[in-house]
Amino acid sequence: MRTSIATVSLSGSLTEKLTAASRAGFDGVEIFENDLLASPLTPEDIRSRCADLGLSIDLYQPMRDIEAVPPEEFTRNLRRARHKFELMSRLGADTVLVCSSVSPLAEDDDALAAAQLSQLAQLAQDFGIRVAYEALAWGRHVNTYDHAWRIVEAAGHPALGTCLDSFHILARGSDPKDLEGIADIPGEKIFFLQLADAPLMAMDVLQWSRHYRCFPGQGGLDVTGLLRHVIAAGYRGPLSLEVFNDVFRQAEAGPTAVDAHRSLLVLKEAAGLAALPAPVVPTGAAFVELVTADAEPASALLGALGFARTARHRSKPVDLWQQGEARVLVNTGPAARRHGTSLAAVGLESPDPAGAARRAESLLAPVLPRRRAPGDAPLDAVAAPDGTELFFVATDPVAADGEDELPDWRADFVDVPHQDATPHGVTRIDHLALTQPWHEFDEAVLFHRSVLGLHAQESVDVADPYGLHRSRAVSNADGSVRIALGVGPAPTDDGARAQHIALATDDVVATARAFRAVGGRLLSLPANYHDDLAARYAFADGELETYRELGILYDRDTHGEFRHCYTHTVGRVFFELVQRDGGYRGYGARNAPVRLAAQHAAR
Amino acid sequence: MRTSIATVSLSGSLTEKLTAASRAGFDGVEIFENDLLASPLTPEDIRSRCADLGLSIDLYQPMRDIEAVPPEEFTRNLRRARHKFELMSRLGADTVLVCSSVSPLAEDDDALAAAQLSQLAQLAQDFGIRVAYEALAWGRHVNTYDHAWRIVEAAGHPALGTCLDSFHILARGSDPKDLEGIADIPGEKIFFLQLADAPLMAMDVLQWSRHYRCFPGQGGLDVTGLLRHVIAAGYRGPLSLEVFNDVFRQAEAGPTAVDAHRSLLVLKEAAGLAALPAPVVPTGAAFVELVTADAEPASALLGALGFARTARHRSKPVDLWQQGEARVLVNTGPAARRHGTSLAAVGLESPDPAGAARRAESLLAPVLPRRRAPGDAPLDAVAAPDGTELFFVATDPVAADGEDELPDWRADFVDVPHQDATPHGVTRIDHLALTQPWHEFDEAVLFHRSVLGLHAQESVDVADPYGLHRSRAVSNADGSVRIALGVGPAPTDDGARAQHIALATDDVVATARAFRAVGGRLLSLPANYHDDLAARYAFADGELETYRELGILYDRDTHGEFRHCYTHTVGRVFFELVQRDGGYRGYGARNAPVRLAAQHAAR
Repeated sequence: MRTSIATVSLSGSLTEKLTAASRAGFDGVEIFENDLLASPLTPEDIRSRCADLGLSIDLYQPMRDIEAVPPEEFTRNLRRARHKFELMSRLGADTVLVCSSVSPLAEDDDALAAAQLSQLAQLAQDFGIRVAYEALAWGRHVNTYDHAWRIVEAAGHPALGTCLDSFHILARGSDPKDLEGIADIPGEKIFFLQLADAPLMAMDVLQWSRHYRCFPGQGGLDVTGLLRHVIAAGYRGPLSLEVFNDVFRQAEAGPTAVDAHRSLLVLKEAAGLAALPAPVVPTGAAFVELVTADAEPASALLGALGFARTARHRSKPVDLWQQGEARVLVNTGPAARRHGTSLAAVGLESPDPAGAARRAESLLAPVLPRRRAPGDAPLDAVAAPDGTELFFVATDPVAADGEDELPDWRADFVDVPHQDATPHGVTRIDHLALTQPWHEFDEAVLFHRSVLGLHAQESVDVADPYGLHRSRAVSNADGSVRIALGVGPAPTDDGARAQHIALATDDVVATARAFRAVGGRLLSLPANYHDDLAARYAFADGELETYRELGILYDRDTHGEFRHCYTHTVGRVFFELVQRDGGYRGYGARNAPVRLAAQHAAR
Repeated sequence: MRTSIATVSLSGSLTEKLTAASRAGFDGVEIFENDLLASPLTPEDIRSRCADLGLSIDLYQPMRDIEAVPPEEFTRNLRRARHKFELMSRLGADTVLVCSSVSPLAEDDDALAAAQLSQLAQLAQDFGIRVAYEALAWGRHVNTYDHAWRIVEAAGHPALGTCLDSFHILARGSDPKDLEGIADIPGEKIFFLQLADAPLMAMDVLQWSRHYRCFPGQGGLDVTGLLRHVIAAGYRGPLSLEVFNDVFRQAEAGPTAVDAHRSLLVLKEAAGLAALPAPVVPTGAAFVELVTADAEPASALLGALGFARTARHRSKPVDLWQQGEARVLVNTGPAARRHGTSLAAVGLESPDPAGAARRAESLLAPVLPRRRAPGDAPLDAVAAPDGTELFFVATDPVAADGEDELPDWRADFVDVPHQDATPHGVTRIDHLALTQPWHEFDEAVLFHRSVLGLHAQESVDVADPYGLHRSRAVSNADGSVRIALGVGPAPTDDGARAQHIALATDDVVATARAFRAVGGRLLSLPANYHDDLAARYAFADGELETYRELGILYDRDTHGEFRHCYTHTVGRVFFELVQRDGGYRGYGARNAPVRLAAQHAAR
């Protein structure tokens, strides 16, 4: 099925919006009237611009407060409609959206509504135009899809059909049973389908609709279920996104359009309308790669953490540091950026790297060149929305019977002589915490869920001294891949976005002590924090004193315990040492305000 | 009555918060537990820091999920409470807030709640501490003030009282009658009063409370009415602000604390608890002052608009441009800033300039030196939150019988020879539109209402191509002073904040033509906009063509009509020409998206 997007969903001038929609792969657009009014392009110019961009104009929208009004008012409305139909003819748009009236003049009279809509449809038909009548969730008299459909049915005009909108239908908190009536609407009378999701918020539906809509899969509405009903009814028109969102209004149109189109692809797959390459869920974190213009600070920190520099890339200035199954690459190549050390790439263990990359590509992730330099082993990699490179790799691959062995990403690395460092007990990467650009948080979550097949936990608020952060973790089933996606309170300097690497240890006290013994600096915590721990929990003798001394934080959930501490920050990056016991599932979010305040104080 | 503020209401570290509260004139603070936990200061340090800053610690908060729980859970709670009471003793805080439980363990058993709270109060009493029990609006079993009071009353312990919170009480949409029970609570059993306002939003009360609270007078709750009831009950403790707000968390603590304290002063006045100098409502706009390092662009624009340079300041590089009763000062003195021309000051006609300044000063507006240079006439002036200087002045003052004549602000200006310019029909300043720093919008509205005695209209959303703006106008009764306060979508470069001066004319077409005839450039509008006007309204022959030619926008309300157009922008400033007919009350907000898009396109 064709995909479309309403111009109101994107930021910028009309031509910026059209360009972004086209580049992201949409087939068509809905032209939102205000975008046309504000554009210096004539309707004919817009028509040809869309044609050049390969976009059809699937809908012109909206016309408001048309129906069920006194005759003299309706005469004025028809006059206005005639102007708009003339405009649509110049634009080459053949369907217009009419929203159910919110006017105080509107009467609660379905027969009158049907008669006037029929007259409107007759006028439209003269212009070769169809009228799609939609129930706004806050319509004065008509606010459910089935009420709108009854009026359309009663009107019985061939140029009059209905428009279904997932937000308006699902925002009213309908019982799933209420959706069953959709399948009874003849498919050819569903003239249009608008799709939007929204986070579940108990708030005034008009405000919710105008400010908080999001793309399908980013909210809490069952858009997939609704779509199945509409398809069952026989609808074969475009799947079109209409999203009013304060953040998207501000964010660059190009990335938003890609995010939008990806959401439709995921929706189609979920509704059984499209087959994409299956997700290949990663089975572990093979490595992280830091880029820096000066390897010294990161190397000193890794050394103090008990990592050894075990290998070097054969052709590039990349060192491999390893401890247990935790691996960190330090790259001083040309990708190094001005913000000092930053996390540029993540290696994800994959049972099928090429399949993982195909999945990502089908969901619009930019695919990176397989070979970065001649002679390098081929590597499957894509870019996440925040620019982090995701490599799909195998470490120590073992060929299954009858299959080719996967290439080992370490084949490009040559062992270097190194002291048998005394490891400090780090066993593997526990999780990564990556702060996203402020407007890409929902996109990042949908990307990691859909492209990597990870499961998303609930979003949590975390109070920083200087604003509220949000955080949402994605992980695979056994917790061997965990990424905590975060976002700051508002537009901030992207270069300063914090990234951190949490390293697992079975004994955080021993690891922390070993780190300090060789000169490592741990983030020191306020005594008040540990006093509060004493009030909340009973600890073994001396335990709390040890945590005070080392700056270890403590949390507990219904599954188990979590002990963790933090190194100082190098560039944008710092490390966390974490000990999970008894199946603790979280990331210490309760402790984050104290940690954030301590990091501010340490600056 | 003493004023206090919860540290959670302000941004930053605990010491930043305390400093800001003290500087803004608060008498005390509530210490929010998380702020203490995150602070490197010991409780004793915090105590002495507060003492140095002249702040009492009026409340320690909150303790949660204490009461109506099984015995073994209550034993744990008492253990935790003992730790907190020890901490409070070190801190020198004698009142603790206990919120009604939200725990799934809590039983719906008032007798149990009363018995356990009584036990808690007994323990508190041993430390010289009082327990203030508050009903959270979303408490599991106890969520109204009268329910909390019944439990306190039943407990009958001298160290147990209640805490009233305006948000929790008013957010439940109580009938005013429901508040009458407050007066029946013995005043000495109301241990604390927390005040917050909130915009009226139909949303989940927990989310509303945690993200959208604001200072009294900035929202839609009747905080004044509630306060009257509490005073009637005999409460004489502090008036304390507890505001959870995402914007305040980010904004600088200093200005937020001033805004907060001003809100309490206004609240006290409204509730009859304090007498401030009465507001002196301005009766007109005497002048605006532009500052610039280069007078040429502004002068050329003013000249083309039909202004004449009629006078010059006797000691400073300030020119007075005049047309009708519209006056613009162009100042090339040292205040000129790097952002090119900007609007630095507004002269407001005042029947009592000194009284107006006293009012402003009593509401924490920075008072500016009365004489800027030796020999200048004294002028009463204060700074608005965005830094705009407000001068209270008289133009052509006439002494009433028995009163001294007010000084004429033009006494410092010397007429300069000027051609009898042909005026273009501008009669006076219609309104000013001043974009506020992103975090100061609510403060700016409260400032203009309370300091200047202006009336605020409803806030409106305006879609810019690159984000949503909000706008709210303040005006005096006859509309001779109108200021449209605006705010952009998010943290943006403050230097780029637009400011515009709308000039009234009785014939916008003639004024616009005269402007163009001498080379003035009007903002050109998309043809689609005027096509839409044709669809919406019937115009006289040729009328719409004239609007197309000149770039005139049109709006209509139930009172009358509005025609307006815009000049190009000089620095941060542009001019609007407006013609109001028949009592039109708005500012053309419906046209703002088109105007904003055209301004973006013209850049």
